[in-house]
Amino acid sequence: MTTGDGTPSTGPRRRGRPSRAESTTGPDARTRILEAARNEFAQRGYDKTSIRGIAKAADVDAALVHHYFGTKDEVFAAAVELSFEPALAIPDILGSSTEGLGERLAGYFIEVWENPVSRAPLLAVMRSAMTHEAAAKGLRVFVLRRLLGRIADQLDVPDAAFRAELAASHMVGIAVLRYVIQAEPLASAPPEKIVAMVAPTLQRYLTEE
Amino acid sequence: MTTGDGTPSTGPRRRGRPSRAESTTGPDARTRILEAARNEFAQRGYDKTSIRGIAKAADVDAALVHHYFGTKDEVFAAAVELSFEPALAIPDILGSSTEGLGERLAGYFIEVWENPVSRAPLLAVMRSAMTHEAAAKGLRVFVLRRLLGRIADQLDVPDAAFRAELAASHMVGIAVLRYVIQAEPLASAPPEKIVAMVAPTLQRYLTEE
Repeated sequence: MTTGDGTPSTGPRRRGRPSRAESTTGPDARTRILEAARNEFAQRGYDKTSIRGIAKAADVDAALVHHYFGTKDEVFAAAVELSFEPALAIPDILGSSTEGLGERLAGYFIEVWENPVSRAPLLAVMRSAMTHEAAAKGLRVFVLRRLLGRIADQLDVPDAAFRAELAASHMVGIAVLRYVIQAEPLASAPPEKIVAMVAPTLQRYLTEE
Repeated sequence: MTTGDGTPSTGPRRRGRPSRAESTTGPDARTRILEAARNEFAQRGYDKTSIRGIAKAADVDAALVHHYFGTKDEVFAAAVELSFEPALAIPDILGSSTEGLGERLAGYFIEVWENPVSRAPLLAVMRSAMTHEAAAKGLRVFVLRRLLGRIADQLDVPDAAFRAELAASHMVGIAVLRYVIQAEPLASAPPEKIVAMVAPTLQRYLTEE
């Protein structure tokens, strides 16, 4: 669970908005909005989800959704981020050395996807991003840049961003084949078996010249 | 281009149907149907494409579409296969030894995607497969099993099918990030750079214990 006030101020979300508003409405409202957004996007898809619908589900005024997150794209990005909990996960993935980085990253990714609570909205997100440019942009600008960017920043290899994206592409492709297309035997393979095979690939991309 | 009569008889397409029918209608009709199907799926998406629409675009009777390909799922699978030209490509990819297999496979895949003629229908296919179970099934049953199956059959490693799917997952993920989400720097990277990085991964999956 994301506590809402546990996450550091990250980029566009609070741009130009007074943070003291949070104290007047309580961090719970922000968390409620995010979780409502995640459910709405998961159940209705990108197209049919509205700021108003999210506000209604979270039992807040639509203006508060705009206040905390900005546009629908930005709410979408924040809702996706909720599944990945980057503020908590990234330090764990990066660890104190690059040894085992590939394994930690593959393990984290599979864990997020194996958890039904995060899987449903992620599936919705991927479907939306495949068919709606606005959702694709949300993934591209916020999620990829913020998630991968933070990992790439810590890498000591040439073309760090390119390599982080190659690693991400592999994991995205596994998600597509395993959870969306459900191709066998990948769909039924034990998570450990996938992690064991994929970890050396990610390790090579992220750490070896 | 696929000549229609150049492809060997592959599974469900001609199941139980007399092959001499081709000589009465000419191989051109079959090719025209396939190309019409590819265009229809690319332009309209899986849902809105009908056998009747394909027949109209190919200037043949709808019964002939059924005759050659069977159900809409099967036409879809054949239309996807048209982009990959497996009958021509697989022997080239497999080559005479496994040396360089990863590079040939990565190069082939990127080439298919870089070609605008095959890219448009592939994008449509991926979008359809993400959102329609019938299209996902088409990919799963026909394309993955037939394309990957033929490669996996030639591999001398344990879990060949699993490994072939891991390799495929990486390439699918690259397609998603590069061509659909258009994440930078991957979207603008030269194809050779991607092949150079990805080839050792595919080589490891397909040939190393």
